Amino acid sequence: MPAEHGQTPPFAQAADVRMLVLDVDGVCTDGKLYVDGSGHALKCFHAHDGIGIKLALRAGLDIAVITGRDDPGVRARMTGLGVRHYFPGHEAKMPALRLLEEESGIKPAQMAYLGDDFIDLEPMAAVGMPMAVANARPEVLRAARYVTRLPGGEGAVREAVEWLLRERGLRDLAAVWLNGAQR
Amino acid sequence: MPAEHGQTPPFAQAADVRMLVLDVDGVCTDGKLYVDGSGHALKCFHAHDGIGIKLALRAGLDIAVITGRDDPGVRARMTGLGVRHYFPGHEAKMPALRLLEEESGIKPAQMAYLGDDFIDLEPMAAVGMPMAVANARPEVLRAARYVTRLPGGEGAVREAVEWLLRERGLRDLAAVWLNGAQR
Amino acid sequence: MPAEHGQTPPFAQAADVRMLVLDVDGVCTDGKLYVDGSGHALKCFHAHDGIGIKLALRAGLDIAVITGRDDPGVRARMTGLGVRHYFPGHEAKMPALRLLEEESGIKPAQMAYLGDDFIDLEPMAAVGMPMAVANARPEVLRAARYVTRLPGGEGAVREAVEWLLRERGLRDLAAVWLNGAQR
Amino acid sequence: MPAEHGQTPPFAQAADVRMLVLDVDGVCTDGKLYVDGSGHALKCFHAHDGIGIKLALRAGLDIAVITGRDDPGVRARMTGLGVRHYFPGHEAKMPALRLLEEESGIKPAQMAYLGDDFIDLEPMAAVGMPMAVANARPEVLRAARYVTRLPGGEGAVREAVEWLLRERGLRDLAAVWLNGAQR
Repeated sequence: MPAEHGQTPPFAQAADVRMLVLDVDGVCTDGKLYVDGSGHALKCFHAHDGIGIKLALRAGLDIAVITGRDDPGVRARMTGLGVRHYFPGHEAKMPALRLLEEESGIKPAQMAYLGDDFIDLEPMAAVGMPMAVANARPEVLRAARYVTRLPGGEGAVREAVEWLLRERGLRDLAAVWLNGAQR
Repeated sequence: MPAEHGQTPPFAQAADVRMLVLDVDGVCTDGKLYVDGSGHALKCFHAHDGIGIKLALRAGLDIAVITGRDDPGVRARMTGLGVRHYFPGHEAKMPALRLLEEESGIKPAQMAYLGDDFIDLEPMAAVGMPMAVANARPEVLRAARYVTRLPGGEGAVREAVEWLLRERGLRDLAAVWLNGAQR
Repeated sequence: MPAEHGQTPPFAQAADVRMLVLDVDGVCTDGKLYVDGSGHALKCFHAHDGIGIKLALRAGLDIAVITGRDDPGVRARMTGLGVRHYFPGHEAKMPALRLLEEESGIKPAQMAYLGDDFIDLEPMAAVGMPMAVANARPEVLRAARYVTRLPGGEGAVREAVEWLLRERGLRDLAAVWLNGAQR
Repeated sequence: MPAEHGQTPPFAQAADVRMLVLDVDGVCTDGKLYVDGSGHALKCFHAHDGIGIKLALRAGLDIAVITGRDDPGVRARMTGLGVRHYFPGHEAKMPALRLLEEESGIKPAQMAYLGDDFIDLEPMAAVGMPMAVANARPEVLRAARYVTRLPGGEGAVREAVEWLLRERGLRDLAAVWLNGAQR
């Protein structure tokens, strides 16, 4: 099957997006791999994105993660933030997207997908709201309907979440957070 | 209790501030979480901020830290700098602020608070001098009376300390440091 | 033997380059060495460069690495990406370049070399296509026929690979990647 | 003894400098402290500075390091580069400077000192050539005769070394490096 990233996807309205799907390297992280002597890589997440993911879940926007590797540190980070849909080890992302659809009952047309590299072009072509981080590869920027102002790992996930929630009509996101925290 | 961040706090004069209260992630650090294979996160502090915290304590400006997590590395860093008021594990920060008032005998009206995210809006609304780092979220920037030029983890704490000390009339901060070091 | 970096090498056409030779520190990494308590240094690679190296290998552009140190983490990273020509421990790089020629059967005139510092000037003078990263030392920038827009560790390797492949006439690199991934 | 940083030191000609004295945090590193769960801090050095230190030693410009802490990783990095004058654990730097004078037989008037913070003001006032990194504190910038274009940990040490060597009349520093490497 050839790449579908040249096709025009059936775009969703941002307000109708029920789930935001995230790539890890370069999207939830700055793309850097801090390699130690044993070849294991530390990855760099941002606290603002952590609040963003929790905020999305509190506001009823579901979050999923599809990543090419199976890194226990990434899993710990994501499950610690409350992410229930976590698909590691899927370098080819379409099978994971189909599993996610089955597991969640949410159609790709109601998903947003935030990506940065070639690996993300197929799921971006399949979802209703393709999004890219500021420092995505040129092909990915061209395939996106929304490009964040911030690069990956510097708050791009937070920015994507807040934009989707504001498109739903939520104005005071700080109040959503603080009221949720006090429950 | 709804969020109070829309209210106008009873602002203090900077010269009257007796204690600077710090958030950790994004304020004392750059907000980045370098996650290793076990899910533990390294956090990145700055040497200039360390000198700033020691300088404040030497000059009689007390320092407190309230943080959402209980990270032994952060505790070691802060106690190593001489910080005695350290409140970890308080994602909702108001209870910790009340404990801090009891422990220190300093009223919130005589405190400054340096923050960067939603979690900081309530204590910022409660203290006399709300401050934000350059890369704080927009809601936090709007709630601050003083915004540092530097982002968190790049010297913002140092900048906040030096501003507060200069407002007290201290002109030669290097002399304060060097004389203190030679005692 | 004096340094040859003042000589004019027999330049190759980019389209004729069969192998890209990479330095590690400052080229595949940002040049930073995150030193722990035992003196071991973590090094910081970029996910975009990893895709770039795999893309090159899929498209038939071979990749080699010559590095001054023998770091098991670097070896693990490079072999994990499929790099077969890996020469560690060669601070003087010309002997390694000659070994590489023997091992691969590719003449230096058909090699590109991407460097950033003094250590790279001799192999750059010996290959057909000397290249430098954006933040290379001035002497290295002057010796290069192609200077990447991105600095080392931020995607410079990816950029070098994509330029060489486009010069060969490959237009849709995302399709090369995705078709290769689905094989 | 009060701070001497307001006095005019007896400036040396750059060409007469026989030794460059370095602070660590913020000069050899970017000032960042990557704190792990046990409170230990990784520090971030730059490969370009490593070549700069080796280049200085090859060209007969001696290098010394005076640092406030005793960090075995820093010691390993510096001794690995060939630095013989290493003084850890000296937060007040003047005693170490006097020890260095005794050990090396080089007078402070023939030393350069590269600093970034309050702690460096006294030795900067004592040496013949006070230098500061680009992101030094304002008081340190004012006390310096030479300010590097690059910030600490990004090549400032390399820049200081190359300026001192060029002031001695060395024009082709790459040749100095390469000939030294082939000995």
